Amino acid sequence: MERKPDLGGALEALRARAPLIHLITNFVTVNDCANIVLAAGAAPTMARHPEEVEEITASAQALVCNLGAVEHGESMRLAGRKASLLGRPVVLDPVAVGASGVRRKLVARLLEEVEVAVIRGNASEIRALALGVGAGSGVDAAPGDLVTERGLGRAAELAGGLARCTGAVVVLSGPLDVVTDGRRAFVGRNGCAEMARVTGSGCMLSALTGAFCGALPERRLEAALAAVTALGVSGERADRHRCAGGTGNATFRNDLIDGMELLTPDILEREARYDAL
Amino acid sequence: MERKPDLGGALEALRARAPLIHLITNFVTVNDCANIVLAAGAAPTMARHPEEVEEITASAQALVCNLGAVEHGESMRLAGRKASLLGRPVVLDPVAVGASGVRRKLVARLLEEVEVAVIRGNASEIRALALGVGAGSGVDAAPGDLVTERGLGRAAELAGGLARCTGAVVVLSGPLDVVTDGRRAFVGRNGCAEMARVTGSGCMLSALTGAFCGALPERRLEAALAAVTALGVSGERADRHRCAGGTGNATFRNDLIDGMELLTPDILEREARYDAL
Amino acid sequence: MERKPDLGGALEALRARAPLIHLITNFVTVNDCANIVLAAGAAPTMARHPEEVEEITASAQALVCNLGAVEHGESMRLAGRKASLLGRPVVLDPVAVGASGVRRKLVARLLEEVEVAVIRGNASEIRALALGVGAGSGVDAAPGDLVTERGLGRAAELAGGLARCTGAVVVLSGPLDVVTDGRRAFVGRNGCAEMARVTGSGCMLSALTGAFCGALPERRLEAALAAVTALGVSGERADRHRCAGGTGNATFRNDLIDGMELLTPDILEREARYDAL
Repeated sequence: MERKPDLGGALEALRARAPLIHLITNFVTVNDCANIVLAAGAAPTMARHPEEVEEITASAQALVCNLGAVEHGESMRLAGRKASLLGRPVVLDPVAVGASGVRRKLVARLLEEVEVAVIRGNASEIRALALGVGAGSGVDAAPGDLVTERGLGRAAELAGGLARCTGAVVVLSGPLDVVTDGRRAFVGRNGCAEMARVTGSGCMLSALTGAFCGALPERRLEAALAAVTALGVSGERADRHRCAGGTGNATFRNDLIDGMELLTPDILEREARYDAL
Repeated sequence: MERKPDLGGALEALRARAPLIHLITNFVTVNDCANIVLAAGAAPTMARHPEEVEEITASAQALVCNLGAVEHGESMRLAGRKASLLGRPVVLDPVAVGASGVRRKLVARLLEEVEVAVIRGNASEIRALALGVGAGSGVDAAPGDLVTERGLGRAAELAGGLARCTGAVVVLSGPLDVVTDGRRAFVGRNGCAEMARVTGSGCMLSALTGAFCGALPERRLEAALAAVTALGVSGERADRHRCAGGTGNATFRNDLIDGMELLTPDILEREARYDAL
Repeated sequence: MERKPDLGGALEALRARAPLIHLITNFVTVNDCANIVLAAGAAPTMARHPEEVEEITASAQALVCNLGAVEHGESMRLAGRKASLLGRPVVLDPVAVGASGVRRKLVARLLEEVEVAVIRGNASEIRALALGVGAGSGVDAAPGDLVTERGLGRAAELAGGLARCTGAVVVLSGPLDVVTDGRRAFVGRNGCAEMARVTGSGCMLSALTGAFCGALPERRLEAALAAVTALGVSGERADRHRCAGGTGNATFRNDLIDGMELLTPDILEREARYDAL
């Protein structure tokens, strides 16, 4: 992809192809992940029983492994290897990878055994993967890790290094988003602070990334940028509603998902804000 | 039940009796299932630990086994056998039964060991059960299976055959709903397309069917028709709100549940649209 | 705490300190628990894998063990002992403890092995713990157990006895709430009936109690009263919206969480209604 990313076209393709996306994801945010995938125009399936995940993955166009479901690591491995074998894109969300040894071990094993198309994490998670150091208590990025304009170069370097080393597109999401395949890099500027006040913004982004990759398996970098931007635009729209209506984070969450269903290729193209780095 | 179904009376009975409904259901939509059961006027309990499900079922008026929780198959068997022993109605939701061998095996075992009062599935699931053939990728009905006016006769035959063969009332839900005990059959015409754009419409219908059956254990056919119609009417009301407000699927889901709490026997009688076949 | 409780100050402290709260909680209401903890100003983490819960608890300021996740009893024990060792407050929610033997055994073991800071349950659950008798079908309080003005003395005695016997602050929540450390006791009068029409009001209260305790580990009684009152005030505000808007329980749930984010120390102080007993 040397040309300008075609985000509107990516959304159109997603809706035309309506791919089936296999999410092995955590119990906290699974309902929101499923609904935002439906809102985007794809179909989610959340099977996770080790005896059936290979069959399910085989019928899906993409797989998303969310480390919040660390207890289903074996299912992730089975499904991930099946997806690799079939050439289906796998999105890896290393939720809180810096917070425990069992997560670090599982990620290492998945990266070894599975051909990962996209890694999507927050700054602390990407940092932990790139540098092999634990950081971040809980599931949120440590404040010192958050990417600002000033730290953008360093973040892009970090993400790019991880991309080159793993062969995956890396999405480092936060106040600013970095999307890179290790060769080209973009900074995404959509989104809003309230996204950090609902549980599951990151999980939803990973699920959406799976949906876009399922529709555009040959254009992973564009698919990842489209997912980041689509969620960011929906977030901004939800935030305007929140400010106007004096509502809070639960309504924001609903509006965020609603916004994905109401998003059109035109709106996405018009409100997207990103730059090549 | 040779007389006209009394759907308003069924809702009244549900609210008067406020039965306790034991849901062994999947982690994706469990919160919505619990809230719509509460909205309808019943009380849900979602216990699933194999060491306690028999005790819980013994104190409940109905049991719902949702195959999305396939990893809790053993708990379904224990609870189902206890319910059978006590004469409590059991609703079986064969989620994605065509999608994996482990699901097919579990359903076969449940149908063998448990007296199932109602089977509630989409067209692909009912087809897979009736004909023993796998169909449907993921949890949605395959497009070719969806019941239209033209295919209604065939769908009713399929559902009726499964009802006669299992002794269960069969609910085949979709754009048109078929409800039959193998002797009498109804087609339900309430509902709207947006119901397929939220995760859990089917699961919520199964949970509601359990609630109505718990209140009316001797009138399973009427209870199932009341559940289908009540959800369909709530869906239509939610859809009018969606169209008027320019909202999306997350708000629709909330309105669907709200609508169940606001539903009265009068509204249900007035807006119900179904025919005897 | 012999002085008047400073609830506004407690909310301020919670927001200033933004503690990390480790919730080992059930799959039904976990999303709402996480979002209300975020709305209050704290950060939730829901790790429950036995191989990592000790690491997670060690980085958190408080732990909440919700018996609805009875299948994760071993993780609760590991995390609870770690929290005790580190002097972090542990909130125990004995969901449906009267409904099964496996729950009774787990609670007994947790009370033996873990230093519990607060026990938060409904009237039937506290009764079952205090008197060792099973009561309550499902997860709701049995109607005969609900605390009214007339039964307040008896309820306070029950809760106080349990507090003295366990060393924990006891919160018996319902139409009236009793909060006591066995020496001092308060009755909370905030809240509304609709809170019993959504799943998870009790779970959310326990999660919030963990959040306040994480911010104020040395002032458990005040923290518990602040949590009860904050949720009650948010509930009343959500209920006014419900009555004005003709909405139902799903919207109420969202408004309840929104209300927690919009709550200020001033509103909390002004709308709190409680008495020392």
